[in-house]
Amino acid sequence: MTASYDSGRLDLPFTGICTFGRHPHHPDWSALDCDVVILGAPFDGGTQWRPGARFGPRAIREASTLFAFGHAGAYDHEEDRTFLGPEVRIADMGDADIVHTNTEKSHDNIRFGVEAALRAGALPVVLGGDHSVHIPCIEAMEGRPCHIVQIDAHLDFVDVRHGVTRGHGNALRRSLEKDWVTGLTALGIRNVSSTAREGYEAARAMGADILSVRQARALGPEGIAARVPEGDVWLTIDIDGFDPSIAPGTGTPSHGGFLYYEVLETLRAVAYRSHVVGIDLVEVAPAYDAADTTSILAAQLLLNTLGFVMDAR
Amino acid sequence: MTASYDSGRLDLPFTGICTFGRHPHHPDWSALDCDVVILGAPFDGGTQWRPGARFGPRAIREASTLFAFGHAGAYDHEEDRTFLGPEVRIADMGDADIVHTNTEKSHDNIRFGVEAALRAGALPVVLGGDHSVHIPCIEAMEGRPCHIVQIDAHLDFVDVRHGVTRGHGNALRRSLEKDWVTGLTALGIRNVSSTAREGYEAARAMGADILSVRQARALGPEGIAARVPEGDVWLTIDIDGFDPSIAPGTGTPSHGGFLYYEVLETLRAVAYRSHVVGIDLVEVAPAYDAADTTSILAAQLLLNTLGFVMDAR
Amino acid sequence: MTASYDSGRLDLPFTGICTFGRHPHHPDWSALDCDVVILGAPFDGGTQWRPGARFGPRAIREASTLFAFGHAGAYDHEEDRTFLGPEVRIADMGDADIVHTNTEKSHDNIRFGVEAALRAGALPVVLGGDHSVHIPCIEAMEGRPCHIVQIDAHLDFVDVRHGVTRGHGNALRRSLEKDWVTGLTALGIRNVSSTAREGYEAARAMGADILSVRQARALGPEGIAARVPEGDVWLTIDIDGFDPSIAPGTGTPSHGGFLYYEVLETLRAVAYRSHVVGIDLVEVAPAYDAADTTSILAAQLLLNTLGFVMDAR
Amino acid sequence: MTASYDSGRLDLPFTGICTFGRHPHHPDWSALDCDVVILGAPFDGGTQWRPGARFGPRAIREASTLFAFGHAGAYDHEEDRTFLGPEVRIADMGDADIVHTNTEKSHDNIRFGVEAALRAGALPVVLGGDHSVHIPCIEAMEGRPCHIVQIDAHLDFVDVRHGVTRGHGNALRRSLEKDWVTGLTALGIRNVSSTAREGYEAARAMGADILSVRQARALGPEGIAARVPEGDVWLTIDIDGFDPSIAPGTGTPSHGGFLYYEVLETLRAVAYRSHVVGIDLVEVAPAYDAADTTSILAAQLLLNTLGFVMDAR
Amino acid sequence: MTASYDSGRLDLPFTGICTFGRHPHHPDWSALDCDVVILGAPFDGGTQWRPGARFGPRAIREASTLFAFGHAGAYDHEEDRTFLGPEVRIADMGDADIVHTNTEKSHDNIRFGVEAALRAGALPVVLGGDHSVHIPCIEAMEGRPCHIVQIDAHLDFVDVRHGVTRGHGNALRRSLEKDWVTGLTALGIRNVSSTAREGYEAARAMGADILSVRQARALGPEGIAARVPEGDVWLTIDIDGFDPSIAPGTGTPSHGGFLYYEVLETLRAVAYRSHVVGIDLVEVAPAYDAADTTSILAAQLLLNTLGFVMDAR
Amino acid sequence: MTASYDSGRLDLPFTGICTFGRHPHHPDWSALDCDVVILGAPFDGGTQWRPGARFGPRAIREASTLFAFGHAGAYDHEEDRTFLGPEVRIADMGDADIVHTNTEKSHDNIRFGVEAALRAGALPVVLGGDHSVHIPCIEAMEGRPCHIVQIDAHLDFVDVRHGVTRGHGNALRRSLEKDWVTGLTALGIRNVSSTAREGYEAARAMGADILSVRQARALGPEGIAARVPEGDVWLTIDIDGFDPSIAPGTGTPSHGGFLYYEVLETLRAVAYRSHVVGIDLVEVAPAYDAADTTSILAAQLLLNTLGFVMDAR
Repeated sequence: MTASYDSGRLDLPFTGICTFGRHPHHPDWSALDCDVVILGAPFDGGTQWRPGARFGPRAIREASTLFAFGHAGAYDHEEDRTFLGPEVRIADMGDADIVHTNTEKSHDNIRFGVEAALRAGALPVVLGGDHSVHIPCIEAMEGRPCHIVQIDAHLDFVDVRHGVTRGHGNALRRSLEKDWVTGLTALGIRNVSSTAREGYEAARAMGADILSVRQARALGPEGIAARVPEGDVWLTIDIDGFDPSIAPGTGTPSHGGFLYYEVLETLRAVAYRSHVVGIDLVEVAPAYDAADTTSILAAQLLLNTLGFVMDAR
Repeated sequence: MTASYDSGRLDLPFTGICTFGRHPHHPDWSALDCDVVILGAPFDGGTQWRPGARFGPRAIREASTLFAFGHAGAYDHEEDRTFLGPEVRIADMGDADIVHTNTEKSHDNIRFGVEAALRAGALPVVLGGDHSVHIPCIEAMEGRPCHIVQIDAHLDFVDVRHGVTRGHGNALRRSLEKDWVTGLTALGIRNVSSTAREGYEAARAMGADILSVRQARALGPEGIAARVPEGDVWLTIDIDGFDPSIAPGTGTPSHGGFLYYEVLETLRAVAYRSHVVGIDLVEVAPAYDAADTTSILAAQLLLNTLGFVMDAR
Repeated sequence: MTASYDSGRLDLPFTGICTFGRHPHHPDWSALDCDVVILGAPFDGGTQWRPGARFGPRAIREASTLFAFGHAGAYDHEEDRTFLGPEVRIADMGDADIVHTNTEKSHDNIRFGVEAALRAGALPVVLGGDHSVHIPCIEAMEGRPCHIVQIDAHLDFVDVRHGVTRGHGNALRRSLEKDWVTGLTALGIRNVSSTAREGYEAARAMGADILSVRQARALGPEGIAARVPEGDVWLTIDIDGFDPSIAPGTGTPSHGGFLYYEVLETLRAVAYRSHVVGIDLVEVAPAYDAADTTSILAAQLLLNTLGFVMDAR
Repeated sequence: MTASYDSGRLDLPFTGICTFGRHPHHPDWSALDCDVVILGAPFDGGTQWRPGARFGPRAIREASTLFAFGHAGAYDHEEDRTFLGPEVRIADMGDADIVHTNTEKSHDNIRFGVEAALRAGALPVVLGGDHSVHIPCIEAMEGRPCHIVQIDAHLDFVDVRHGVTRGHGNALRRSLEKDWVTGLTALGIRNVSSTAREGYEAARAMGADILSVRQARALGPEGIAARVPEGDVWLTIDIDGFDPSIAPGTGTPSHGGFLYYEVLETLRAVAYRSHVVGIDLVEVAPAYDAADTTSILAAQLLLNTLGFVMDAR
Repeated sequence: MTASYDSGRLDLPFTGICTFGRHPHHPDWSALDCDVVILGAPFDGGTQWRPGARFGPRAIREASTLFAFGHAGAYDHEEDRTFLGPEVRIADMGDADIVHTNTEKSHDNIRFGVEAALRAGALPVVLGGDHSVHIPCIEAMEGRPCHIVQIDAHLDFVDVRHGVTRGHGNALRRSLEKDWVTGLTALGIRNVSSTAREGYEAARAMGADILSVRQARALGPEGIAARVPEGDVWLTIDIDGFDPSIAPGTGTPSHGGFLYYEVLETLRAVAYRSHVVGIDLVEVAPAYDAADTTSILAAQLLLNTLGFVMDAR
Repeated sequence: MTASYDSGRLDLPFTGICTFGRHPHHPDWSALDCDVVILGAPFDGGTQWRPGARFGPRAIREASTLFAFGHAGAYDHEEDRTFLGPEVRIADMGDADIVHTNTEKSHDNIRFGVEAALRAGALPVVLGGDHSVHIPCIEAMEGRPCHIVQIDAHLDFVDVRHGVTRGHGNALRRSLEKDWVTGLTALGIRNVSSTAREGYEAARAMGADILSVRQARALGPEGIAARVPEGDVWLTIDIDGFDPSIAPGTGTPSHGGFLYYEVLETLRAVAYRSHVVGIDLVEVAPAYDAADTTSILAAQLLLNTLGFVMDAR
């Protein structure tokens, strides 16, 4: 993306077709040739309380236009550096096809998209949808060992309950079961949720390092990052890991969550210490986001995190 | 329910635990002994656009308290008659158990509740949830021949698409396939929807009488009722059959819908001419119902319709 | 009000301090010298369901600026006539003082304001607040015989229940009890409400002519007006007399209400046949009025009605 | 657009990048080769009360996905006919470039887009933005004589006031001044607005036929269409021509507006009698559209009207 | 409550009749036999700005279902402990009867409910309603000496103004006047409010320890708790003690309030040091709570606080 | 303002005509005789994303009534001092006249109002509107040297782009160009925005001291104030300098903003160290402020800041 102000259009944020960050739409997934791809995964059939995360990708794309002013990259005056300059090629794949009433098929279609991204050598960035869309993301990683860093209010570690294995409360259990998943750093976990005591015990037994907001806060961003292995890392960001004050638009808000810089600085530290190989950001539910602050948060965090990740490469 | 004003509590509508119309909660479904039972069916996994109908039962119950002033029945000054007096015993069964990601199991649980109501000889009134909850309602009617009267913007007559058979676009197809369903009068069908031309042709071939809002309006309530058989009738009311002006809080609004008296008078005529054996009212989605007018509409319509149905008996 | 466009300010509707119709604020009630006065009565302690009508006067004033473009009067192209020209002097008295937890004192303060208006020979226009503010309006009319025309979904004719005599469900009972009130024409009454059968019987015994929306619709505006005496009339307009489609922002919406022209044409007919001596418009509750349509309705109706009333004089 | 259900994707309405009706995005305006083009004109600097129509194109595109189920065209069961089949090629041009604080430049950019459409022989459909965007639309029609049919609450016929000539209150004055504009049929005009008596007189002198909602209603759709010349017609649809009950999401709502079928049937009659050469639909303001009903109305009306227009060709 | 997942129902949070935490409803107050009782006090006649707290109990009950997953108690992974296990019996009394326009009678009815709870030896937890409902709570404590811990933005210490003694601005004055109230620790008091300088002086003279948010923050939870006597304590929690960022849904928000852990840790410290004998939580106004975060906060805080209180016993 | 409780009216915050803080309205700008004047500047034609700040003055005035209880001044218990006592005379000038589509004229009218205030020796407090209204404020300061202290998420330092010089992204560039502006302290600047790297460099070259939230936080209020010259200072407060958690109602929210006490204490320190000669507070957009918390923040901050400024004199 080059600066277009003087030669071309002004392209104010409220104009135009909403792709992520105004980057080009690549509906042909067999011919992806870029560094980062955005894939919408608008499935919310796994929610246990308020639905609506199916409109998350659409809302995050719309919010992302606020940060796409046509500059040549994003200048950060605190770092005095420009991120995501023209050398970083980003594309928007559009959305995985969702089949209502059919969780397996919807998940398969998401997996198919993530696999296409990985095959093309691009960093997949998946926009949920509820947290269950994390499951096909990790399934697409088959054969690629990675550690998972989770930002979340809830551990989502239910094994199976009433036969349910692919709801948003099962997400991390499903991924930690995989051979190619080497461990989990879970950040922000707090208060009562669908995961009972046994879930925590099982998670720890399977390699999870679980930190509450207060515990993570005490360690600080660098302290947290130091507990994450230096190799390949998949980031799974449930927006309800943030405090409801800045992320009200989500299915199951939980008070006492992270504030903005806490997560930003943690992800920055992880991006430079480890090697981020994929991201999913889930549970943005626009119907509960009266001022769009939650989708703005998702877009702002993703663009900054992508800046760090691509700069670290 | 007897008038409690002077001896007991004032019980203003904003007070108290929200059961439907403040009628008693009967969580034990094996011991239902009453004339009418309310069953919540908070499943919205079948929606193709905006979800949220899972909160329909809760919103309709809350709205219904507005019409439960503690009088001995509901006095209608236009008819100079009191409906739903103390001789009509109404109970609230609570909700069918819903299993996220599992449409079949959720539908089975709804069917189980409707069967309990029918077995007890009570009139089942099912609060959706999306229109797919109509499918288990009709499955519970197995062995009890009935005609269906549908109020709806959409015909919901998709057979199977991408393997989906129990979404909200398949509802009436599924019920009309049943041996014990003798026909369908579909009212309010309009504009483009998920049902294509072939769906209309199939419906007519299977015994459907399809009327748009304009066609129904031309016939008038009595004219419509005259096209419905006099025997047992199941009413399935999709709130989007109404105009978005009075029913904005629904997943897929369609302009040009019915106004209040059109449906009220039609259901009144059907109630007295035919024999209503069950009701489902679906697709109330509170997240899009800023002033609660949609849930108030659902409650007001149900209470009045129940008055007619029970009076006709 | 003279046209100020070329000599002075443009005064777009979103600018300026919000008095009713941008008319001057007259906080000194002892020196009112004008034809019409607006008095806010922001009391909602009489509501039985959703409160918030205390913000009605503020919202109606704000909405009224939309119709105050600085023209010399309001030109109506359908009538090819200009209403409320500079010869009609209108002032905004501000609000009656409200004392929370004390209904009597609050009502007394409203009565005090209406009396000041009447003493000054001005037409009082009272903005509620809930319908209980009608009671002090009529009390201020002591010694001035009048008939009441009510637009409302509910008859509000409860005598006393649990000791309550000045709630919004008692309003018309309280006024019809007065010696100086000669009768009542109640329009739009429908569905279940806090008034039971005995209330209707009492009302008829005390001189009430009660018409539902459907009954009034069958008569037409002129037919309705013909049932109203030709002498002095007080108009009490509960915004819930209108349909919830255009008046969602009210405490107790009731479907099947009047549409805009039905009320406008009825009030027009009454204004020219009878002699309107006072108006209260109540139950606008902005917290439930997402698009401000209800307060716009109130302002639009009042300005048009005032045009008719002042033209008829 | 061919049906893709079995061979390809299900493409539920909540998925994918939002172009109008999911039709292809053609950002290269020099190479338009299709029958109908959609152009966003997100300018709202001309509003006199509530702004926000700049987000109209985005909201209408999103709503239009509800009616884009992947069928081969839109089947209308009332007409038993399929509209907008694969033979009608539709494209979305994206938005005209808007320059904040500069009305002239923004209007020029809109004109540039409409000219590109006309040059390519495509039917331009412009999504506002406020009603001032109608001005560049008609400027682009230079050299192509046409009559204008306006659906609107307000006549928008202010000449110049405080120097303003291109606000939304000046729109029709500006177009009727053009040599190539042969006349105006204004439908729905009602109540007080920024146009004073002189504006009405000037409009009539310049060839305007002005009908209020009640006057238009008395004529009926065919009666109205009969007053429109049979030649080329440009449709300008201000969403506030509709009643606030179905179009709350607009800057300056006015009660007593048109209902859905009234406009639909009028536009249908005009489409078959006259020859529609361009359309603008303006003043959808999503910030005031809590349930998206206004943008759904715009999308539903446009898709149906386009069906009639293309079928009539 | 025992875990029901495998033997019984899944009972997702969006299903079922809303009692507090899904605990049983005990409408017969003469036969309460449990450890904790919830009583709704939906009175908001004492508010001085935005009303609506009458819907607080209903909203808090609904939000509480999010934390009632059917586990056997609430597992807290930070403490590695399970609170509110099956040995703690909780019941929902429903609501006190409210009489509109009559503050005294409404307060008496609340007092009656609290007395019933105390008589039964259960811990009363009262859900407001506005802060005036604290007055009858403390009146019910007659004969039981206690200290009061208040979380609040406002001191609520007006004696009498215009005759008002039982508004929400009088609450703590009324309770501190009682013989059986031994003192007050007021936390979070800040900014201008209805209490003037004399109110602060009177409060201190009557035994109040008043700390602003900044003063309390400087002391820390343990430092605050050390200022509270070790004996019996009544907690009165005005939700506006919290910051508007997490508690927007309240009548009179005041910026600069407490964050979640500050209050949670303070109440935890008080619960273990002193002996909590009753709780009221007031001023949740759902009409201003777009994303339900305020009612979620109330439910989350109450459930955690009850866990500490019952564990401390 | 003297206490009126016992002799006069109670004047609860929800009553009465909304001037700022209930102070008198002075529409005659040639005869201002007071210490502080409030001027509305409802212009939002300069916004690049979400408009609506034109309704900012109206919303801030309404919110300010919450803090106007009729006390004689505002008692601050943390300082044990009363601010803004009767010796401080405050008046509300109403709004500058705004001409839609004409930025220059609108800005001129704002400048005219600020000049009137300065000429009268009153402290001007301007309520935006978008940040472009800062430009005429500083133009009115011609001949009065001052330093600018800016609270903002965005530097707003674009010189000219597509010819635009008076949009909200140009505001500080325009003022820093003035001879009489001696420097800028910009606080809270963060994340990507319309100002590119060159803008930052130009700002620094022109005398700007730019601090991000994190940088400012590290310095603390006194540390920041120490960087501001001791002479005359104009405060320009963009509400988006605050965190979206407490200021969601703004056009372009940016996460990671200031919390309440950070700004309050900084402005307090500046008020006592330097000499505040004017204030503008901009970008409050009520359409995105579901619970009014943003306008409450603006009113609360302004009233407290005015207390410090006037006390420092």
